[in-house]
Amino acid sequence: MRCSVLRVPMASPDDISGLHAYVERGVLDPSKVIGVMGKTEGNGCVNDFTRGYATRSLKDFFEDKNGISTDGISFVMSGGTEGVLSPHFTVVSRDTEESEAETDEKSLSIGIAKTPVFQPEELGTMYQVTEVAKAVEAAIKDAQISDLSDIHFVQVKCPLLTSAKIEDAKRKEKAIVTDDTYKSMGYSRGASALGVALALHEINEIDLNESDICVSWDKYSGVASTSAGSELDYCEVIVFGNSEKAEGPLFIDHVVMRDAIDGAVVKDLIDTYPDTSIVQVLAKAEADPSGYTRDRRHTMLNDSDINHTRHARAVVGGVLASLCGDPMIYVSGGAEHQGPSGGGPVAIIFSRTNN
Amino acid sequence: MRCSVLRVPMASPDDISGLHAYVERGVLDPSKVIGVMGKTEGNGCVNDFTRGYATRSLKDFFEDKNGISTDGISFVMSGGTEGVLSPHFTVVSRDTEESEAETDEKSLSIGIAKTPVFQPEELGTMYQVTEVAKAVEAAIKDAQISDLSDIHFVQVKCPLLTSAKIEDAKRKEKAIVTDDTYKSMGYSRGASALGVALALHEINEIDLNESDICVSWDKYSGVASTSAGSELDYCEVIVFGNSEKAEGPLFIDHVVMRDAIDGAVVKDLIDTYPDTSIVQVLAKAEADPSGYTRDRRHTMLNDSDINHTRHARAVVGGVLASLCGDPMIYVSGGAEHQGPSGGGPVAIIFSRTNN
Amino acid sequence: MRCSVLRVPMASPDDISGLHAYVERGVLDPSKVIGVMGKTEGNGCVNDFTRGYATRSLKDFFEDKNGISTDGISFVMSGGTEGVLSPHFTVVSRDTEESEAETDEKSLSIGIAKTPVFQPEELGTMYQVTEVAKAVEAAIKDAQISDLSDIHFVQVKCPLLTSAKIEDAKRKEKAIVTDDTYKSMGYSRGASALGVALALHEINEIDLNESDICVSWDKYSGVASTSAGSELDYCEVIVFGNSEKAEGPLFIDHVVMRDAIDGAVVKDLIDTYPDTSIVQVLAKAEADPSGYTRDRRHTMLNDSDINHTRHARAVVGGVLASLCGDPMIYVSGGAEHQGPSGGGPVAIIFSRTNN
Amino acid sequence: MRCSVLRVPMASPDDISGLHAYVERGVLDPSKVIGVMGKTEGNGCVNDFTRGYATRSLKDFFEDKNGISTDGISFVMSGGTEGVLSPHFTVVSRDTEESEAETDEKSLSIGIAKTPVFQPEELGTMYQVTEVAKAVEAAIKDAQISDLSDIHFVQVKCPLLTSAKIEDAKRKEKAIVTDDTYKSMGYSRGASALGVALALHEINEIDLNESDICVSWDKYSGVASTSAGSELDYCEVIVFGNSEKAEGPLFIDHVVMRDAIDGAVVKDLIDTYPDTSIVQVLAKAEADPSGYTRDRRHTMLNDSDINHTRHARAVVGGVLASLCGDPMIYVSGGAEHQGPSGGGPVAIIFSRTNN
Repeated sequence: MRCSVLRVPMASPDDISGLHAYVERGVLDPSKVIGVMGKTEGNGCVNDFTRGYATRSLKDFFEDKNGISTDGISFVMSGGTEGVLSPHFTVVSRDTEESEAETDEKSLSIGIAKTPVFQPEELGTMYQVTEVAKAVEAAIKDAQISDLSDIHFVQVKCPLLTSAKIEDAKRKEKAIVTDDTYKSMGYSRGASALGVALALHEINEIDLNESDICVSWDKYSGVASTSAGSELDYCEVIVFGNSEKAEGPLFIDHVVMRDAIDGAVVKDLIDTYPDTSIVQVLAKAEADPSGYTRDRRHTMLNDSDINHTRHARAVVGGVLASLCGDPMIYVSGGAEHQGPSGGGPVAIIFSRTNN
Repeated sequence: MRCSVLRVPMASPDDISGLHAYVERGVLDPSKVIGVMGKTEGNGCVNDFTRGYATRSLKDFFEDKNGISTDGISFVMSGGTEGVLSPHFTVVSRDTEESEAETDEKSLSIGIAKTPVFQPEELGTMYQVTEVAKAVEAAIKDAQISDLSDIHFVQVKCPLLTSAKIEDAKRKEKAIVTDDTYKSMGYSRGASALGVALALHEINEIDLNESDICVSWDKYSGVASTSAGSELDYCEVIVFGNSEKAEGPLFIDHVVMRDAIDGAVVKDLIDTYPDTSIVQVLAKAEADPSGYTRDRRHTMLNDSDINHTRHARAVVGGVLASLCGDPMIYVSGGAEHQGPSGGGPVAIIFSRTNN
Repeated sequence: MRCSVLRVPMASPDDISGLHAYVERGVLDPSKVIGVMGKTEGNGCVNDFTRGYATRSLKDFFEDKNGISTDGISFVMSGGTEGVLSPHFTVVSRDTEESEAETDEKSLSIGIAKTPVFQPEELGTMYQVTEVAKAVEAAIKDAQISDLSDIHFVQVKCPLLTSAKIEDAKRKEKAIVTDDTYKSMGYSRGASALGVALALHEINEIDLNESDICVSWDKYSGVASTSAGSELDYCEVIVFGNSEKAEGPLFIDHVVMRDAIDGAVVKDLIDTYPDTSIVQVLAKAEADPSGYTRDRRHTMLNDSDINHTRHARAVVGGVLASLCGDPMIYVSGGAEHQGPSGGGPVAIIFSRTNN
Repeated sequence: MRCSVLRVPMASPDDISGLHAYVERGVLDPSKVIGVMGKTEGNGCVNDFTRGYATRSLKDFFEDKNGISTDGISFVMSGGTEGVLSPHFTVVSRDTEESEAETDEKSLSIGIAKTPVFQPEELGTMYQVTEVAKAVEAAIKDAQISDLSDIHFVQVKCPLLTSAKIEDAKRKEKAIVTDDTYKSMGYSRGASALGVALALHEINEIDLNESDICVSWDKYSGVASTSAGSELDYCEVIVFGNSEKAEGPLFIDHVVMRDAIDGAVVKDLIDTYPDTSIVQVLAKAEADPSGYTRDRRHTMLNDSDINHTRHARAVVGGVLASLCGDPMIYVSGGAEHQGPSGGGPVAIIFSRTNN
């Protein structure tokens, strides 16, 4: 098995000309693609339709233009390219053919899975947590990773509550976790992240209750990255890790930023692998829920003009872009139970072939 | 002469409790204050009243609470604490008493000046450029700096056009540079910055025409920081440099970021002075007008929900805070003719007494 | 007793030149003022400092410029002048001197009162409900209104939770009603409105539980108008009604809009009093929490760029301004338990002297 | 010829389920459709991708689902459903078969046309004005309207300048009308509206210069409605009028609001046709560029958080919805040269069959 990762700039949410060009040039084999993570230029909040627009454009690209079923492809669109962040797709391919070469080195290995569809009343509950955990376990198996410590990034795309869904649940007299649409994104992200933590044994199931969701910030996953959107009603899961079953020049590692300006730990990670090149950076960002960063008051949670996830992406995007020298990276906002409170996981996919 | 710089957190635009506490504890002598630069938590754009609110609170503090005339104090409020940036005042004091100590080292020296009041039709014109240049020259003299290369930061607070001012000018049949209120901020900042460049001989007057303002981005000052606001109708100028006439542990130096993520040059500046502590960071930020950062498309100029100056402050604030470990720094947005296109000046005030 | 109401335009939150001019011209006697309701031009949400800035400017006007204690003056600043709404103060005066004239007609009568200071954990609870009810009763007494059906508008200004207050409560391990700053405004408005309903016997105390707050939308007051702000930590109450103890040309009446576009009922109210002039319109606006207006989906609750209270003010401000021909009216956003779900109370102060 | 107009609610920009249901039920014959005007739920400004997303969904609906070429269909998507405005499509069909019935009454007649593609440097120029005028003339012919006074609404969808287009023009050293993306929308709308005025002889070509565009507000069309978007680079034109060549129960009439709250003139129009029902309302809205509405200062032009077109749509949408009792109407923002300064045209399509 050989996994590859290709970044493709997009000029707008429906721009698949970059993908097309890579296929034309033989750089990308669309039949090997198992996932596309997009950073689209909407507000990244409730009424961000750039995620759905990009997903539709991608499906057209694979199905209409290349005749490939998208059933086996995981589409994860994360809205919000605040600050220097540059809209792009991260295309993940996997070639499962037997290889002649033998190697001792573990290489990048990626697996995908889906949860069942969630009802509005199931969002932000333990049911979501356990279903996500099951899907993560399936994706780990799909990635052929045997050691949980080899897992460095678990991306989950999860649903949110729109006002239509909220009305619907109320009509059916179902209790929902919140009737605030923006806030429902946090609950869905939080429950998904705890699902990752469960699957990776970062938390024991016995220590986790429904009341912990979006409350007990000390319970978190160091590798989860969860992103909510109105364009799906189940969860997509993509697991990134290293495996001896995989070959090729790519590998992944991660650190956990303790706050939004913890560039030092990321610089250390980069310096750990001197003779490599960076293929992609995957990170989560959040406004510290305490209202303080390094004991200094921030204003992100009191800002009624710009949602705090937008502020956070701008900051972490800037910090990471300044370190890796490239603003076309994946930074997603809202890090509930993803890394410590105010911080978040950062994974880097490196290539051993320094180009 | 001895200049000192004190940072004071504020809990809201009218919070002068921190100043009060410093006076009580004998840390701050209000009669020595010559300038206060504030980072207030408004949108930093046209309808940002936190700047005026903070100015009023400061005037009350000095006049009512301490009986000190504010005629000799320069108030420069810059709105916008996007991302991790933390609202605070930078209080600049100057003690001009003769000192016994003799020293070869140049130390931080600060001077202030004002321009005359500008009419709406004068904003963004060569008249504003030359009047600002004169005020900068006066402030340099006030700072007792003889060598222009010793100047590392020139802060200008300048007016903008509100819709009332625009209407007024139209009634009087005066031509104004733009009838877009947000855009007028850029013209006023741009003309002010070129005034600084003129005073510092970074550009020759003969090479500068009115048509260069907000057009010829290659003409710029490497130390200008200009900020527009509706709370004044003239310009306040504060010059920061080093002088052999000044004593004390503080000194200032600067670099020019070539783009919003050029943290490397700032890290180099910090590393140049290993046995010092950072007292304050002063910087300008802007969204690259080309629409690209490091050849990657950014979306700041197409964003009709969040103005680009807000994006830019969030990014540069994050990058600088990650380097100096403190989000309570001064980062102002809109760097027209302040540093190269897309970049901006960064000055750091260091203390030789590493604490 | 004679109550008068004067509208004064403001050019900015600190503009008291209009008030000053009215005093100069003898139109306004500052010593008779008992309340000022302001419509200020901030976002009307959490980080709207125009409310506090205007309050400070008003206090300076009364205390410094006119030597009048503001202890007996109720300041109610409501932020948000979306759409055509025009920033202004509504200055309420009361002259309590015995009058010679006798009249059978009831005239406008206004009373004020305050609640005690609320702790963060008390906001949005039954404690707030009952304390507001007590203050409303006190204000009714102050207004010398004996018949509750003569009360047509009860304005309450109430506190909100900032992130600093939330952090503080958490440190003290106090349970708070929400940890979302914008959402806390709704809870505080909702509890205050139910307090009005209680005092006016629109709801019986026995039928009201804490769990009804911001849930049971069928429980509401038809005359409450409540507005939250960070600039105070108790509630200000102003009661508007008619009383036989009052004289003068002014009187008040009200209707309840069933939704944001129910202009018909307001037109009927205006048509009821043909030989009068409109002195001021006081109204509440909200985005229908069902997500629908007249069975048509609206997008205000899904909009992550503009808060729904801002949308609602723009709409209701437009509808009412088109009916009364004047955009300088008082429309406040967020009508939880103020009128039926999606609708809100509208009171009009008329003058019998049609000018 | 018989023209019909059908309003179809949409749950999101890609929701064509309503169209599908109408086809299923035999209410809509997709092969007769000549235009679709959409009110989509984006910000209606530069980075509003809901317009393109809806267009794409519509094209898929016609082409893939119904096998109909969309070459002959005009798609005009107008973003922004602020306030109560409800996202929907207005589907315009035309049946050109000879009819047996003869009638003296003029009925609704609709025609469409396109301009050539515009280069960035052509936007906001006289070239755009004259090309739009030609397309309007073609559309009038297509509608078989002989008397210009029978034309009551001319919808133009026109391009805007994105930062990519601006960069491109600069590289080619082409002068563009503005380098502000949001502002370019106004120039494109303004030039298009003057093109309508030219075609309808509301202005003589000799009286019109390039310098009038977005300057001489007294030159305007009383029936133009122009809307800018990044999803096309030419102009779509749809002409609505009455013709003796058309039959059926529908007809159209219009008035011109003199400002955003001029509901009175619209009420008069509705009252003119007592035994009819309203099929659709088509209107333009703008923030009065003077900064005043009925001599009261508004804050829409100074608001750096919400663009003025968004404010204006919320207001006019509310005023019109309150008069016709339905928020699912077409209100588009930015009325440069469309009606008098601050006002705008309002057309109503009535049905003689009052249902």
